[in-house]
Amino acid sequence: MLLRLEGRGLFNSAAIVARADRKEAVGLAKDLSDYLNSKKMPVFLEQTLAKRLGRPEAALTLEKMRTDLVITIGGDGTILRTCLQLPKPEPPILAINMGVRGFLAEVPPKEGITAVEKCLKGEFTLERCMKIGASIGKKRLPAALNEVFVTSHAPAKLLYAKIWKDNTAVAESRADGFVIASQVGSTGYSLSGGGPVLDPEVNAFVLTPVTPLTMFHPIVFSSRSTLTIELIKPKRAVVVLDGHYTTEIKPTCLRIEVAKSEYESSFIRFGQNFYKRLKGRLLFSRGENL
Amino acid sequence: MLLRLEGRGLFNSAAIVARADRKEAVGLAKDLSDYLNSKKMPVFLEQTLAKRLGRPEAALTLEKMRTDLVITIGGDGTILRTCLQLPKPEPPILAINMGVRGFLAEVPPKEGITAVEKCLKGEFTLERCMKIGASIGKKRLPAALNEVFVTSHAPAKLLYAKIWKDNTAVAESRADGFVIASQVGSTGYSLSGGGPVLDPEVNAFVLTPVTPLTMFHPIVFSSRSTLTIELIKPKRAVVVLDGHYTTEIKPTCLRIEVAKSEYESSFIRFGQNFYKRLKGRLLFSRGENL
Amino acid sequence: MLLRLEGRGLFNSAAIVARADRKEAVGLAKDLSDYLNSKKMPVFLEQTLAKRLGRPEAALTLEKMRTDLVITIGGDGTILRTCLQLPKPEPPILAINMGVRGFLAEVPPKEGITAVEKCLKGEFTLERCMKIGASIGKKRLPAALNEVFVTSHAPAKLLYAKIWKDNTAVAESRADGFVIASQVGSTGYSLSGGGPVLDPEVNAFVLTPVTPLTMFHPIVFSSRSTLTIELIKPKRAVVVLDGHYTTEIKPTCLRIEVAKSEYESSFIRFGQNFYKRLKGRLLFSRGENL
Amino acid sequence: MLLRLEGRGLFNSAAIVARADRKEAVGLAKDLSDYLNSKKMPVFLEQTLAKRLGRPEAALTLEKMRTDLVITIGGDGTILRTCLQLPKPEPPILAINMGVRGFLAEVPPKEGITAVEKCLKGEFTLERCMKIGASIGKKRLPAALNEVFVTSHAPAKLLYAKIWKDNTAVAESRADGFVIASQVGSTGYSLSGGGPVLDPEVNAFVLTPVTPLTMFHPIVFSSRSTLTIELIKPKRAVVVLDGHYTTEIKPTCLRIEVAKSEYESSFIRFGQNFYKRLKGRLLFSRGENL
Repeated sequence: MLLRLEGRGLFNSAAIVARADRKEAVGLAKDLSDYLNSKKMPVFLEQTLAKRLGRPEAALTLEKMRTDLVITIGGDGTILRTCLQLPKPEPPILAINMGVRGFLAEVPPKEGITAVEKCLKGEFTLERCMKIGASIGKKRLPAALNEVFVTSHAPAKLLYAKIWKDNTAVAESRADGFVIASQVGSTGYSLSGGGPVLDPEVNAFVLTPVTPLTMFHPIVFSSRSTLTIELIKPKRAVVVLDGHYTTEIKPTCLRIEVAKSEYESSFIRFGQNFYKRLKGRLLFSRGENL
Repeated sequence: MLLRLEGRGLFNSAAIVARADRKEAVGLAKDLSDYLNSKKMPVFLEQTLAKRLGRPEAALTLEKMRTDLVITIGGDGTILRTCLQLPKPEPPILAINMGVRGFLAEVPPKEGITAVEKCLKGEFTLERCMKIGASIGKKRLPAALNEVFVTSHAPAKLLYAKIWKDNTAVAESRADGFVIASQVGSTGYSLSGGGPVLDPEVNAFVLTPVTPLTMFHPIVFSSRSTLTIELIKPKRAVVVLDGHYTTEIKPTCLRIEVAKSEYESSFIRFGQNFYKRLKGRLLFSRGENL
Repeated sequence: MLLRLEGRGLFNSAAIVARADRKEAVGLAKDLSDYLNSKKMPVFLEQTLAKRLGRPEAALTLEKMRTDLVITIGGDGTILRTCLQLPKPEPPILAINMGVRGFLAEVPPKEGITAVEKCLKGEFTLERCMKIGASIGKKRLPAALNEVFVTSHAPAKLLYAKIWKDNTAVAESRADGFVIASQVGSTGYSLSGGGPVLDPEVNAFVLTPVTPLTMFHPIVFSSRSTLTIELIKPKRAVVVLDGHYTTEIKPTCLRIEVAKSEYESSFIRFGQNFYKRLKGRLLFSRGENL
Repeated sequence: MLLRLEGRGLFNSAAIVARADRKEAVGLAKDLSDYLNSKKMPVFLEQTLAKRLGRPEAALTLEKMRTDLVITIGGDGTILRTCLQLPKPEPPILAINMGVRGFLAEVPPKEGITAVEKCLKGEFTLERCMKIGASIGKKRLPAALNEVFVTSHAPAKLLYAKIWKDNTAVAESRADGFVIASQVGSTGYSLSGGGPVLDPEVNAFVLTPVTPLTMFHPIVFSSRSTLTIELIKPKRAVVVLDGHYTTEIKPTCLRIEVAKSEYESSFIRFGQNFYKRLKGRLLFSRGENL
């Protein structure tokens, strides 16, 4: 999962994605852009950011960011949105944390320049993360880094669905929705629904029901399995990928298939491991100084 | 996981293990023994059962059952006890359900003879199940089919422990105990503690804390990982394997290591799959006829 | 909670509410109506039902059912919808179970006539159930029998809210939604969210977060308390009462107040108690014959 | 629950209980004792503490502490142990937090003297807390502040029990154990078992199963109810009160009855309310600055 790359010369172009609604994020984007330019590296900026920085000539949409490196400045939301839209295979991401939630983003803003320096010197490891591919009939959805969430189209309306693994019936269940989360995504929405944490090294994803009416436990499947959620009633549902991409299941095709994607997302890391990140967020002590 | 064997000729000897405290189990054991004898198959009986059936010459301890087939008549408890003690590698088990709890045992008593017939004809599949090996210092414990449970030596006393994956610190936690369960074991005690179900095909085991004081979610690890539980306080704990084998962690060695065992248990199956068995037990509907 | 009334003479008029989409429900409605007419009792029918039975002269909307007795034929959904709309104070309900989910409805269809007979003879107890009143600013919402559910207006979007008890800040939390459930409602949606069962005799309601991002346990409050949910972000949310009445919280008033209602719902019971009903639905055994 | 007392003159004697294994606790005990003596207040010391401070003449066992005030210096464990043993009705407790866990103890050590000063001036409120009384046959157990825990006598052995509310059968269940917790106790062991938080104003206690095999949710009962746990199998169990008092249920009487105690514990408070204490301990944010 972690590869040490020969760094120098790896990155010949970069792109920056930042929360344009946050002054500090925009400021840091400018600093990093200037720094990279000083190193003769061409730098592209996501459109809104380019406008904010008055550099329309550097503007590039996420879908076209075929650069060697993408720097995100924001929280996990910014990263998830970026990974959904980047061209495949995805360039590696250096994630700088400028959000309140930063499980995926590890670098604090004040270490941004240093991180980019290390990056250019090749002093990093690359964390490669499985993504989840879903399709509704012939329609392939963008690969999700965290999770695929299937839910009813109205709040508090039950979804009655049948779950299949490959060609085996797993269960029928009534619930507000069903989450299928990756290892990375297991620490997100799935966890709120009562799902387990998946260690980054286990080749698995987890199906977690959300507020199930029927007694139904989270189930962990091999990432070689294909899961199918078949709507029984009602004949439509909403699908949300990584909290940012929304589509519908309609009566014309009532099945959504979910499997390991052929694509990955990859992150530049400087040593802090999964459980150290997790400790800061999830493995709380209750009233104790551990 | 499921292998179709060429059956005829595979089994040249059999042993029977039955709940000697249950009249029906003893009766069925007699019938099966007579049937197998009529097929010229030598049959051994667990000691208590041999005594109950008045056949001391057929008596054999579990530890010496190097037969080609072992038939258990009882519930999951009988199977777990048998698998803990069988010589390694373990002969395949034909499990007849004579208990109230029968997740592992699939054959109802009245189909016992038919099941043995099919078995001899080779009309079955073999379900191979991962076991969990644990060791305390140099002391290796018997391979567990369901789970390794580490808990404090007195009720309602907290165990303060540190968890390691290979050489990585995972978390420190205070809890009544910690369960490390296999795929099969994930439907047992671990589930009562809030753990997920592991699909039989995922190469994983799950660490589930029992009544944790500290906020601590179940974590699913690759079965290639080695987990270590290190006692911080107190300096002793009880280890229970599959509910049947008990030992202690003492101040002389405060660490228990847990990993995939080199041994497996294997079960004769006639088609009913994991999720059909699960449905009967765990994936309940609430007030609905699914 | 249970009162034995002197029955004879109590009921001088009745109304029937039935699932008009279910043939058996409509048929039973006709039988009960004929039976009551034969006893010289005037019987009104909910509008759709009246149309289905070709008795437009007996049609009455739920809002106008000021009869002495209301008979519902359907599942819990039918009862919840009826109680939301009945004029206050609500007439007692005889609930006949013609749905897959029947926690509130106890009488099976084939005992419908017998139940009405017993009812007229006064051979019953009356179960009185607390309802929950909610208001947004000056707007009072219909009293809910099961629960008030506040949730975000889009699926998988977090609601960031502050909870108050009387004038005390309880907590701030991020979650998909918040349920405030009555004793009766504690066995419904709140339970799916991980809430406890409330015994009918405890004067309490329970606040249950739905898929909370922040660590937030269900909290049980005295029914003398007033709870306020104040939206912090976003500035709008959806409110669903008993799964049947939907309204919105908008930027003009970001607070919803919830307290015990001055109204109750009451049910005709023939002896089967809360825990017997609960056993059939919620207190499952796992693989055991209890 | 909170009463403002006229303080001056209320307290004519005091006793101090401190963790004798903690140097700072013993030091603070000495300071407080000296301070109270300077105010002409007679001060008693728990035996071990008296020995540690070289004041054998001031020694008093917990069972004999009929003083007007008891000061505890330690964590929640010290308080629970003290309340179990104090003579009834219990004198009010001023709890100074010298432990890692301090949900009940609110005063930090450096404010100890100031707190005692305020206490003598009557500048405080008194928080009165319900206790739980249990009896096995004719044997009454000490009133518990947090919880009564019934569990099997060996680790990981199931207890099969029947639960009664007054004379109504609630459920039969198989579990490792059953917790009956007060409002205060709902934030302790019961919470680890998945129970809800009980607001201090709700007149209730909660029954929480620990690792139930059978599907069994926590149930909240009115504090006017009497709960009975009847052992079905095995015919013995361990009872632990507040983590400090242990007794057994034996075949001679297989039922333990639990109800609101006639006694209370009361705590000197200086304003910080329940939810502020709770926030510091239980209502965590996950990776967010709330």
